[in-house]
Amino acid sequence: MGLIVQKFGGTSLADAEKFHRAARRAIRAKLDGSQVIVVVSAMDQSTDELVDLAYQITDRPSRREMDQLLATGEQVSIALMAMAIHHAGHDAISFTGGQIGLRTDRTFGRARIRDITERNRIVSLLKQGSIIIVAGFQGVDEASNITTLGRGGSDTTAVALAAAFGAEVCEIYTDVDGIYSADPRIVPEARKLDYVFYDEMLELASLGAQVMHSRSIELGKNYNVRIHVRSSYTDAKGTDIVNVSSDLEQVIVRGAALKKNLARVELGRVPNRPGIAGEIFRRVAEREVIVDDIIQVIHEGGTTADISFTIEANDIEAARAIAAELAGEFAEMKMQVRDRMAKVSVVGVGMRTHTGVASRMFEALHQANVNIENISTSEIVISCVINQDDGEKALRAVHAAFDLGQPPLQDSAA
Amino acid sequence: MGLIVQKFGGTSLADAEKFHRAARRAIRAKLDGSQVIVVVSAMDQSTDELVDLAYQITDRPSRREMDQLLATGEQVSIALMAMAIHHAGHDAISFTGGQIGLRTDRTFGRARIRDITERNRIVSLLKQGSIIIVAGFQGVDEASNITTLGRGGSDTTAVALAAAFGAEVCEIYTDVDGIYSADPRIVPEARKLDYVFYDEMLELASLGAQVMHSRSIELGKNYNVRIHVRSSYTDAKGTDIVNVSSDLEQVIVRGAALKKNLARVELGRVPNRPGIAGEIFRRVAEREVIVDDIIQVIHEGGTTADISFTIEANDIEAARAIAAELAGEFAEMKMQVRDRMAKVSVVGVGMRTHTGVASRMFEALHQANVNIENISTSEIVISCVINQDDGEKALRAVHAAFDLGQPPLQDSAA
Repeated sequence: MGLIVQKFGGTSLADAEKFHRAARRAIRAKLDGSQVIVVVSAMDQSTDELVDLAYQITDRPSRREMDQLLATGEQVSIALMAMAIHHAGHDAISFTGGQIGLRTDRTFGRARIRDITERNRIVSLLKQGSIIIVAGFQGVDEASNITTLGRGGSDTTAVALAAAFGAEVCEIYTDVDGIYSADPRIVPEARKLDYVFYDEMLELASLGAQVMHSRSIELGKNYNVRIHVRSSYTDAKGTDIVNVSSDLEQVIVRGAALKKNLARVELGRVPNRPGIAGEIFRRVAEREVIVDDIIQVIHEGGTTADISFTIEANDIEAARAIAAELAGEFAEMKMQVRDRMAKVSVVGVGMRTHTGVASRMFEALHQANVNIENISTSEIVISCVINQDDGEKALRAVHAAFDLGQPPLQDSAA
Repeated sequence: MGLIVQKFGGTSLADAEKFHRAARRAIRAKLDGSQVIVVVSAMDQSTDELVDLAYQITDRPSRREMDQLLATGEQVSIALMAMAIHHAGHDAISFTGGQIGLRTDRTFGRARIRDITERNRIVSLLKQGSIIIVAGFQGVDEASNITTLGRGGSDTTAVALAAAFGAEVCEIYTDVDGIYSADPRIVPEARKLDYVFYDEMLELASLGAQVMHSRSIELGKNYNVRIHVRSSYTDAKGTDIVNVSSDLEQVIVRGAALKKNLARVELGRVPNRPGIAGEIFRRVAEREVIVDDIIQVIHEGGTTADISFTIEANDIEAARAIAAELAGEFAEMKMQVRDRMAKVSVVGVGMRTHTGVASRMFEALHQANVNIENISTSEIVISCVINQDDGEKALRAVHAAFDLGQPPLQDSAA
């Protein structure tokens, strides 16, 4: 008998009716002959409310106590989900991360999963026909301290359980009905993809497609877990996230993405001496500013350099503080911060074996009259930093240039 | 170095400022040289909100899942309390019932404590100067299922920890400043008692004094834990709950209590055959109707009997349903239910060795023009069932008749 893991996020658990709807999904899978594990997030808003409670008490809550606090959100959801399944007349039993033996390291707030120790008990309950409800996002360290897995942690829990128990599929129920070739709110012709490869999804996630968090996709890739992202509200097939298979490589570009709310920090006349870049970015890291791409240009006979990098717009104040520090030490240095920047990208594992993708993208942006401030590329991604005001126009232009709204000729379900 | 257990109830934890206030209590005890364990309830209202969530899902939530759900309330409180103590610059670490190894049986919803397994870890942390924060009301069974201890469970947790770790005192912080000779909202002359004996407190609790729940007092009695009930809002000394000590027995009546919202069920012409009373009260128990005192009178040449008993008013519908069943079987039986009844009682271990208490009470009620419907007595209690409309007048009359507003001559701190 096959096993299915189903994960329901907070927006799919916003009220009693949504719990019943999720319960019906789980029951249907069981009646269809599967064993079922359900992973739930905290109810919509509840994590925010808990965080707010903590900050009413102190502006610097301890990470251990914050995890102790936040883990209650998922614990509420598991109990309610089990009750909803009972209400429909089926067996279900709920488990916290600790109760299922989901062991992590001790990095409170972003712990990593090490093991799942209560496998025998779960396997035995599954065989008896119980639907197993597991709290996402949380685990325990070796001293029984509660830990949480950080953003997207419930997805990570779901994929880890799917890997540990050899599930046929890990279904991620969410408020969108799959992964699209681009954000359909911006690009009306965007097409729902039948499948996307792990590596592509990893890039799309980091480029602003917020459907799933990177760590869960990495885990899926490492353990070859088939992940199926689909809507909580319809029965339509969603998008599979799967391993690369060679017969599908007719697709060059899988999707396009737009990341907004970026800022560009430009440092001029930085003394060109060994270690200077390291020193700058150590300070950036200390303030937990996340840096996207970095460009350095040496000039003026090699004595100074220009360094520029992209950050999230809400880190601008931190960046300015760093610049003020640096200005005290390097009198010549000039800094400029440009906000309202965006990044448009195309992603596809097919790029590895095809040339001409970059030039086609630049040409499309040029035709659309979008100025490219900066370019960065990896094996499967090409990104251009542009003005945010041009962002949506740029995304539509790139999407059209690669015919992403049309199903590829050889495309078929993975 | 002595150990103090401090327990804060939900009304003492209603908002951030109240957490800080409770934190200051704990810190002061530590600075005064004690080791400190703090036991907390769920924040005011939060348990009701969780129960409401469950009943939005189903009208018959499973007891296991209900405990899984409700335990989150105290878990939120422990994290916030630890944060409040950290905020003031002191060490604190929070524990759920499971984390401290508070083992119970598997009676979900009203589990009984069996053991506390993580004693060494707690003792070691106390020695290091940490304030230990423990979630009241909850434990785990041997399979790590979360259990709850039922009403007043946080008091029970506090007294159990005080017993397990040999605390000098278990302080119960609440929204009243101690135990009174009668409810001061009804009897303005009521006096705050310096001490009350466990047995007296047990009776007062069952007679409607809601300050502490019976099980925690029983536990305190069994392990001889000094319990001190006091206000969260003032520094005034509260009331000690202690063992009987012979030099204090000058007090005959410790306090008086009024229990309202009772109903009296009167069954007439019950066939007088063996086992009939057992049959009636088995049905009453099956519907979980709690019965107070029972009176049976045989008459009409011994062929029939009148049976009457007192119940809580909110069990009236269940009582009517039982009567309807019985009426089907015993055509002659007549039933009458009288609501709006109350019970006025006096309590004191001194009664054991004194006579004349009952007559003094009856005389006081007579003088106040209160009709006595029914009388029941135990070794240390005398109770009269009366009309609820006479209740407050009756309580004042009894309180005055025994001079309970005056400190007894030989009274001194235990």
